Amino acid sequence: MQYSFSDRISNLHPSAIREILKNSDPNVISLAAGNPAVESFPVAEMKEIADHIFDTASGVAFQYGITEGYPRLRELVMKRQKEKYGIGNENDDIMIISGGTQAMDLSTKVLVNEGDTVLSEDPAFVGALNTFRSYAAHLVGIPMEDDGMDIAALEKALKENKNVKMLYTIPSFHNPLGICTSLEKRKEIYRLCSEYGVMILEDNPYGELRFDGEDIPTLKSMDTEGIVIYTSSFSKVMSAGIRLGFVIAPKPVLDKMAVGKQAVDTHSNLFFQMLIADYMEKYDYDGHIQMIRDLYRHKSGLMLDEIRKGFPASVKYTVPQGGLFLWCTLPEGADMLKFVQFAKSKGVAIVPGIAFNVDESAPSRCFRLNYSTPTDEKLVAGTRILGEALHEFLGE
Amino acid sequence: MQYSFSDRISNLHPSAIREILKNSDPNVISLAAGNPAVESFPVAEMKEIADHIFDTASGVAFQYGITEGYPRLRELVMKRQKEKYGIGNENDDIMIISGGTQAMDLSTKVLVNEGDTVLSEDPAFVGALNTFRSYAAHLVGIPMEDDGMDIAALEKALKENKNVKMLYTIPSFHNPLGICTSLEKRKEIYRLCSEYGVMILEDNPYGELRFDGEDIPTLKSMDTEGIVIYTSSFSKVMSAGIRLGFVIAPKPVLDKMAVGKQAVDTHSNLFFQMLIADYMEKYDYDGHIQMIRDLYRHKSGLMLDEIRKGFPASVKYTVPQGGLFLWCTLPEGADMLKFVQFAKSKGVAIVPGIAFNVDESAPSRCFRLNYSTPTDEKLVAGTRILGEALHEFLGE
Repeated sequence: MQYSFSDRISNLHPSAIREILKNSDPNVISLAAGNPAVESFPVAEMKEIADHIFDTASGVAFQYGITEGYPRLRELVMKRQKEKYGIGNENDDIMIISGGTQAMDLSTKVLVNEGDTVLSEDPAFVGALNTFRSYAAHLVGIPMEDDGMDIAALEKALKENKNVKMLYTIPSFHNPLGICTSLEKRKEIYRLCSEYGVMILEDNPYGELRFDGEDIPTLKSMDTEGIVIYTSSFSKVMSAGIRLGFVIAPKPVLDKMAVGKQAVDTHSNLFFQMLIADYMEKYDYDGHIQMIRDLYRHKSGLMLDEIRKGFPASVKYTVPQGGLFLWCTLPEGADMLKFVQFAKSKGVAIVPGIAFNVDESAPSRCFRLNYSTPTDEKLVAGTRILGEALHEFLGE
Repeated sequence: MQYSFSDRISNLHPSAIREILKNSDPNVISLAAGNPAVESFPVAEMKEIADHIFDTASGVAFQYGITEGYPRLRELVMKRQKEKYGIGNENDDIMIISGGTQAMDLSTKVLVNEGDTVLSEDPAFVGALNTFRSYAAHLVGIPMEDDGMDIAALEKALKENKNVKMLYTIPSFHNPLGICTSLEKRKEIYRLCSEYGVMILEDNPYGELRFDGEDIPTLKSMDTEGIVIYTSSFSKVMSAGIRLGFVIAPKPVLDKMAVGKQAVDTHSNLFFQMLIADYMEKYDYDGHIQMIRDLYRHKSGLMLDEIRKGFPASVKYTVPQGGLFLWCTLPEGADMLKFVQFAKSKGVAIVPGIAFNVDESAPSRCFRLNYSTPTDEKLVAGTRILGEALHEFLGE
């Protein structure tokens, strides 16, 4: 059989990061992952709750559920987001989804026709970019600065592109950049999208993982017009493998996303929805998040210490105040892809910056580092080896 | 904000069945669901295994996994399908998915451009139909007979439609019809699709739940040409709420489906993938399935006894040899939608046949009954009330 595939999938390639992770050599220290630290999952408490669900609620937990999600979890999350972050008003509703990526999938499904324009921060989370590509969207990148998107470029893109349906942004602890969009720029982004009638997809999987500085209000907390689809995930707080997240969006949009979800996976894993609800009700959810913040403050500190001590001065890097990543830029003229290979030959895996480019053929002198996944020992050793490799590679 | 939705979602309506289930009145006996019996889930064994995973493998179970699924589960399922049902050869591979619906989603994503033709049994599982609709496929129904599709109509549809990319079928214990496609027709269907170069999506969630008669070979077991995407689910055997199933397909197709899955939900719930693998390895999986078969033989028998005793002779019904459903047809001239309302007023909920029509505006004199979900007591009472309602409604 000569297979003929759809146009949308023919142009889509496997995620470079997933391929790197899949072919991982146990002798190579990986600073390439995006995994949360295993210690950040409340395993003992989850076990207690799981036993309780098995004993008292298996008839619900193992049966089909409703598409929008387990009602008690929806209520608990909505209440918490409202009280702590001012997110959600009477025009919004919430749906539990199968991890943050599903918010990209469903938003694009309901808002974007093939050929319509999706604007995205550039670079951006490659999983989201691939989702937009899988709908044959016309993808336009907005260059990033130290404090978020280049606002002039955003306005130009809004003006010049036809059928702009959505802007994708990770305003807090950006993946891959590790930076936050400033409050001023958030206000400008919201104002411009409101003016041009463009929905904002605010992806905030790391928002609660701030270990330094002050919280900056989310775009969703400013959403008087009903133009923001807000999504976050339990992957970095409870467990990545359970595949659960949530989306808060204006009701008409959320209703359509629920219709889309019925056609995709019916509903998300109900057992772990119930488990998280119990955890939020009966355990110290905020205390648990504080523990993760302390852990990542410690881990990012270990990496930054080694960077400060060991990287050549010509290599620039971001200093994250939360999240899982930082972003390094080689000096002009350096061949980043060659360096990624060189680093691997020295025993350290990193993700090349081009993996996150909206235009996959655009050049990049950057690479992403992750400090949440490795053990402290490997984190220090890996960053040290990387510093030595940089000196050798750059001849500094 | 004036929301503008994509064309694909604008034409899609919430599943009628989900809406019926959502607005369920506790005083109404529901024969409308498609849920497996709660007793069919091996809860005690699952709890033992869950505890073991919490104690020994939480670092894997709660972390990100690979898109194709947990390797040990993939191997176990592939081996079992091969040995018991002759499914899968050296050109095939397997992926674990988030319930059977995801196979429809990913197959359509990778094979079907907007406007391409998807052929489907008519009536068919409404969830699958909605998935095809969500990709703006040109959906063509093939009328069903007592032993499967009208083969002449299938050949005509293959001949007359442009860009036919896929045929959707549930050959065993069809939802909603409760019938099996005969071996002769399976061979014809395979031959025709092979001749026309059309992929077959064989949906087999109920295949193992045969409680009467002899197994009929699957289309996938005949697949020498590599044209069959085969999917089944753990929903009816282990748990519906955990959202796990699998797909076995020719490698080039499966590779593309994996790329699609990365853009949809990254991977499926890893904890329960590990749990099912342990269950298959350490417990009596076949014995458990035998228990479910006995249960549904008993339950379908209860319903059929009441039908035989209480339904007017003018009402036709199918006699299932497995699965969860049977299908009733009112005599000519009867208004089925009015009867569904009438039955509800008498305290029994059933699903109107039009919910499963490829052409939602086509008339139907049919309704679907489910015997797996209600307790024995409610099953008998509900079917009895339905018989009385039929007599009253039809004036017989």
